[in-house]
Amino acid sequence: MADLKKLSRLTPKQIRLLIRKGKWDKPTPGLAMGYAQANLVILPQKFAFDFLLFCQRNPKPCPLLEVLEPGKFLTDFLASHADIRSDIPKYNIYRKGRLDGTVNEIKDLWSDDFVTFLLGCSFSFEEALLRAKIPVRHIEEKKNVPMYITNIPCKPAGTMHGPMVVTMRPLPPDKVVRAAQITSRFAAVHGSPIHIGDPLKIGIKNLKKPDFGDAVTIEREEIPVFWACGATPQAVVMEAKPDLCITHAPGYMFISDVLNEELATL
Amino acid sequence: MADLKKLSRLTPKQIRLLIRKGKWDKPTPGLAMGYAQANLVILPQKFAFDFLLFCQRNPKPCPLLEVLEPGKFLTDFLASHADIRSDIPKYNIYRKGRLDGTVNEIKDLWSDDFVTFLLGCSFSFEEALLRAKIPVRHIEEKKNVPMYITNIPCKPAGTMHGPMVVTMRPLPPDKVVRAAQITSRFAAVHGSPIHIGDPLKIGIKNLKKPDFGDAVTIEREEIPVFWACGATPQAVVMEAKPDLCITHAPGYMFISDVLNEELATL
Repeated sequence: MADLKKLSRLTPKQIRLLIRKGKWDKPTPGLAMGYAQANLVILPQKFAFDFLLFCQRNPKPCPLLEVLEPGKFLTDFLASHADIRSDIPKYNIYRKGRLDGTVNEIKDLWSDDFVTFLLGCSFSFEEALLRAKIPVRHIEEKKNVPMYITNIPCKPAGTMHGPMVVTMRPLPPDKVVRAAQITSRFAAVHGSPIHIGDPLKIGIKNLKKPDFGDAVTIEREEIPVFWACGATPQAVVMEAKPDLCITHAPGYMFISDVLNEELATL
Repeated sequence: MADLKKLSRLTPKQIRLLIRKGKWDKPTPGLAMGYAQANLVILPQKFAFDFLLFCQRNPKPCPLLEVLEPGKFLTDFLASHADIRSDIPKYNIYRKGRLDGTVNEIKDLWSDDFVTFLLGCSFSFEEALLRAKIPVRHIEEKKNVPMYITNIPCKPAGTMHGPMVVTMRPLPPDKVVRAAQITSRFAAVHGSPIHIGDPLKIGIKNLKKPDFGDAVTIEREEIPVFWACGATPQAVVMEAKPDLCITHAPGYMFISDVLNEELATL
């Protein structure tokens, strides 16, 4: 198995080839710095229109980076001919909304009616925050980002509906506006905050008890800032209970050839 | 029939009700100033996924403002419960890609498998240009905007493919950057220019002979600036030859309750 230090010097394509050959099966944060990593959702065609419409209506939690036609497993936009069936280190298989297994490739499961969705991930804007010397607490504390289910309803689409899930990053008051400005540039990866300050206003009762991920330290003077989270579409899909749904395993993302900066607007 | 002067004081909702009752059957430019007007495309469900995917891949020519579930004819986002079957003054009916008639309402034609798409229109950013004292030539000359078929291919999606159609507005050199900045704010209505300067670079041989609309005066020192055009998705759909496709008639748009400024980013 390759080691992280060696991998950090490789291009996204070289890393994907190692993953394809089974030579890297660990999480992807820290790899191919500067390049966008993406969330994966694969659904049978009969659910694809509803999910595509759900993403169109809820671009902040569901920022689509690439959608492949039914049966297509080679990417076009995020990378030239990456194989979506083998180029991600770990996949979760869900049946009727319940986890049914975790695998390293999905070639055996592949069907001509699968539609692949790749969605933006907050890694991209966190890199931009760090470059501007804005602290990201869960990275400092080497934890997973804290995630909370809010009382903000997503706009429903057909069979797909549910509340928005958010991530939280505590910030010193004098960094809040700058953080909002920086993340606004990254509409393709969740974009600007959806809420700043009082968690109760969006239905979060206790910041110390996230619904997913880890709690992080919040200093007395700090303000919690909330961004829409890629856990939203996953929760919504599970609720719709499709016969089959394949996603990346959390932390085991698709590494693209597109720079974070290429996804930014002005 | 109501007259334009009287209508210019009415709200979008009041105007839509007049249209619904058959009391206004003229073009919509100049009505409900400040509010976004939208292009309409209605397709049978079997073409809807491809078209939605085409729009996702080509957001500049195909900026989706609202998509309705199959069979749904009341809007949610652009207006509260506007009836898409009657609230537009004129509809074009296409069969197998050929114009088969123009009607004032489509209630008799409606089917439960129709999917409605409403797309942004450059009227919205033209208003912003005029507010910043940037001249818009075809408005000055009371003409239709000149449109050209380029050699820039859109990203294909399933059965949908074709070249990008653009509009052109000639500008004095010292207004070009400002115009690019202003329209960049309006990503939901075609956004920033796709090309500035030499028309040959995008396959346009003669600016005096637009493919659609009217030629406009270009002064000697002026620079032609090109924006993606809503005629692109229409051309692409016609090429796919669906059994049936219903659009607004050119110039007879859907008038929304959403302000142009609400669609703008930063």
